[in-house]
Formats: sequence, structure tokens, C-alpha cells
Amino acid sequence: MKTLRDIGEDALIARLVGLVPRDENPAAGPGDDCAVIGFGHSLLLLKTDALVEHIHFLPSAPARAVGWKAAARVVSDFAAMGGNPAHFLVTLALPPETDVAWVEDLYRGIGDCLEKFGGVLAGGETSSIPTGSAAVISIAATGNVRPEHLVLRSTAKLGDALFVTGLLGGSIHGKHLDFSPRLTESTWLVSHFKPTAMMDLSDGIAKDLPRLAAASGCGFSVDHSALPITPGCTPAQALGDGEDYEILFAIEASRVPELLAAWPFVDIPLTRIGELVEAENSDELSGGWEHFRGDA
Amino acid sequence: MKTLRDIGEDALIARLVGLVPRDENPAAGPGDDCAVIGFGHSLLLLKTDALVEHIHFLPSAPARAVGWKAAARVVSDFAAMGGNPAHFLVTLALPPETDVAWVEDLYRGIGDCLEKFGGVLAGGETSSIPTGSAAVISIAATGNVRPEHLVLRSTAKLGDALFVTGLLGGSIHGKHLDFSPRLTESTWLVSHFKPTAMMDLSDGIAKDLPRLAAASGCGFSVDHSALPITPGCTPAQALGDGEDYEILFAIEASRVPELLAAWPFVDIPLTRIGELVEAENSDELSGGWEHFRGDA
Repeated sequence: MKTLRDIGEDALIARLVGLVPRDENPAAGPGDDCAVIGFGHSLLLLKTDALVEHIHFLPSAPARAVGWKAAARVVSDFAAMGGNPAHFLVTLALPPETDVAWVEDLYRGIGDCLEKFGGVLAGGETSSIPTGSAAVISIAATGNVRPEHLVLRSTAKLGDALFVTGLLGGSIHGKHLDFSPRLTESTWLVSHFKPTAMMDLSDGIAKDLPRLAAASGCGFSVDHSALPITPGCTPAQALGDGEDYEILFAIEASRVPELLAAWPFVDIPLTRIGELVEAENSDELSGGWEHFRGDA
Repeated sequence: MKTLRDIGEDALIARLVGLVPRDENPAAGPGDDCAVIGFGHSLLLLKTDALVEHIHFLPSAPARAVGWKAAARVVSDFAAMGGNPAHFLVTLALPPETDVAWVEDLYRGIGDCLEKFGGVLAGGETSSIPTGSAAVISIAATGNVRPEHLVLRSTAKLGDALFVTGLLGGSIHGKHLDFSPRLTESTWLVSHFKPTAMMDLSDGIAKDLPRLAAASGCGFSVDHSALPITPGCTPAQALGDGEDYEILFAIEASRVPELLAAWPFVDIPLTRIGELVEAENSDELSGGWEHFRGDA
């Protein structure tokens, strides 16, 4: 018997997607931040994301922060496509002894995020789970994106420059509960310097950058001395901690000086960290969050 | 401290929906089978639904049947709106020691359902949960409905006749894992005898019929001798067992003879079970599935 721990998340997903019907002509292939559905003259984004007690938050975490995180992770994925959040469905699987006030605070946190970044509650589902089981908060949402603003992971080109927003590493010390999804920044990017590829960093750049490069049929080269590291963190933590919720994107190298001069977000670092190279010349990175093989 | 067990699902939802932004002009109010989103000239349906181990299925249940059930519950909700399923997002929260073959069979069951009723996989999410926690399978999906086919719960009128498809009660003995959502039947209904209100029966007619009546501002009268009871079940089981996944609908009383004569599904009973009356003259029903207060 092979267990999920044996094969890990990526191999699991690769096995599963062949077992059910899929769209024969999707606007974006599998493995991007969101699903993209053509719908009349605009594009519908779909995303689902789950927080699990003990894995993504501790029982002692403030419920309002957990709610913020649950919604903000989804907003971060819409940002990573160049789009905006729209309609949210909230699924709660909670044990019967859960304090109602805790659940209300969770919803207040979801509300805080939707009020800041847009989006409305469209529905949801609640279910009991056996006493002692980990609580699960799953949020599914629609977003929308103008077709000319849509940015996939798979469309970067050899030689493109690689950038990240913000600082990397150490999210577990607090940022993972109160991060600001880079929606304003991504909206500015797709309007002014449309990236050739883009994704949000959830599993650590050591895990996520190879995904973007591979989706685009490239390898990557990273300038380790340039990595924007959270003060107090090691380079290994910056590469592998995960839950940064910063934006990683590629852009034509010729546009770099103009981009750096125009970047209007003075409080958000924008750092060139490397470039896309031939796959056979790629750097390798170790670390990053692996579902089913982590501490839990 | 008030716990979820103290207040139950309906009171919880009523408290929560006020805590987050909502659409100011929704195409359907909260509490229907699906959310309804205006999108160009057509309507987008949104639904999320979760299965929890030990609550909705036992660890010994065949994974393929669990997958079927997870998808078919969502299809049943689209049917209840007069619509069809479209794009599915599958979220799995599973412990690391889960057998990969079990998860593949789960997906095959989802695939069986999508192949039969339409719909494609658009994306998903996997997360580990702590060893010993109950597995959660959450499916969010879009559907679509022609505006002229949309049927809400809230639009029935005083005097309308109430019908159910199929037989009620005893689903726990097997039907809950292999039921056929009434999509063909609802599609026929909205095209030929558009109900004034419709919903699917998931928590038992004792729980669900009062919801439909209340949403329409009515009470209800039930002819208990007419209830279509699964052989071997008691009337109380037919009222309260839940997980019937039959369709409950209201229709103008004047159309009843014509409907009964035209009903083309010879293997699916269609039964008039009562009518909508003034709220102050309503029957009362006891039983039905209450999340957070059940056996689990």
C-alpha cells in the first residue's frame, strides 16, 4: 500500500486529475493559481483553499486572524492571475463543542478581508466533525479578470527577469495570520508592466519557483545574494519557510529598468532575484512545504 | 459560552451572514440550494458541500461510492434550482497515512458522477490533517441555469400543491451512497411544468419542507397517509431520516392533473403530499437531521 505520505501532494494530484472529466479546451491548464473559465466576454476565476487546525493555524490563534488568513489566501491567488475576488463560499467543518463566539470572530476576519479587497459572501456550508478532529475551514470563490490582464504561470520566456515582492521567510512568526495579499500591486503590474508569468508564493520559493519555471518550459537561475530576506531569518528559511504570500513574476529583461523606476509602492520591496534559463542549466533549490510530508 | 451544539446550524448561519459583506442585490437570497450570480445573459450557480468521515460516510464505505456521493450532492442542488452542473473544485483534507488507492477510487467516483450528469473538474486543493482526524471532502462547483428555468425556494404561493419525487426514509441503509440526483427529472419539470418553488431533500422532509414553506411566507399541510415511504421504514423515518436527495416542489393546484398525466419517469414515483397554507394554520413536523446536534 502506498500512502499519501509516501507520494506527496504533486504526485497525488498528477494521479487524480486523470480520473475525472476535465474541460477539453481550458483557458488555463491545470496547476495554475486559479481555474480560468471563459464566460461570455470576460473570464471567471475559480479557486478553493482550505485551512486545517494544527496544520495552518493553532487552536490558540485568534479566530479573527484565522478568518482573515482563510480569505486572504484566496485573494492572493486571484491577485496572482491578474484578477479580483468576487463571490465567496465558506465551508466550516467544526466539532459541536466549538464556541459560537469563535466562529463569529472567524467570520469577522473573513469580512475584514472582503471589505478591504472586495468580494462578497455568496453562500456556504457547515458540518459537524467528530469531537477531537481538526477543524477545517474551506473557502471557494469566484473572481474575475479582464482577458488582457490574465497572467498564467506557463507563459514566461527564456531570459525573462524574475522578481518577488516583499520579504521572504519567517511567516510562521506572525505574518501568516495577518499578511496583506498583493492585490493592489498585481493590479498595478498587469495594467502597467504585464508580467509574462506570475504566481503567489505559498509553499516557499524553493518549491514555487521551480513550478513556475517548469510550467513555462524553462529552468531558473537564482542570485542568492539578492534574495530579500526577512530580518532574523536565514537564507534557508527565506527559501523554504513558505506562507510568504508574496508575488513571484517574470518580465522581459528589457523592461526591468523602467519597472524599477516606476514601482509606486514605497513600502513594498521589489527585488530582482534571477532569471529564466534553459531547463538543462537550471539551479536546484531544496526546501519548501510539502503537504502530507510535513511535521503534521 | 455558547457552543455550536447549543445553537445548531440554522441559528449559527443566521448569526454569521451578518458579519461579512454580501451582495446587495442578489439574484437569490441566502438559504436557497445554491447561490445565484447574474453573469451576462445567463445565471451562474455556486454551491459548496462537504462530506465528513464518521458523519456522512464511515471509514469502511467504498471510496468510489463516497466520491459519487460527494459530487452527486452538489448535482442534486443544481437540479433543485432548475440548472445543470458545470465546473467542479475538489478539496481533500486527509491524514498522511491515507492509502493513495483509496483517494484514486474517490476520484473515480467523482468522475462517474460527472460523466453521468455533466460537469468537469476545474481544480482543487489537497491538505494534510493530523493523524486521527476525520477526513473532509469538500466540493465547490459552478452550475448554470437559463433565467427562465431558475426556481427558488421562496416563490411558492398559498394553495400550491406540494410534491416529492421518489421514496422517503432509510437512505442510511445504502441509498445515501449511490443515489441518483434528480437532474433529469428537474430539467423536465422546469421545461414543462415549472414549479413555483423547489428544493432537494437532504436533511429530511420534516426539516426541509418547513424551510421551503417559510421561505415562501407560507405554512404547510401534509397528508401523512400519502407520504411515499421506503418499504421497511416507519413514517417517522420517512419524515426524519434525511439524505433522501429527492426533489420537493410546489406547483399551482390547477396544473396537478395535467402534471400527473404527463410525468414521463415510470420508475420514479411522483407523489402529492400536501399543500401550502396560511402560516398560522401550518402543520408542524418533528425530526430531521440537525447538524451539530446529531449523534456525532
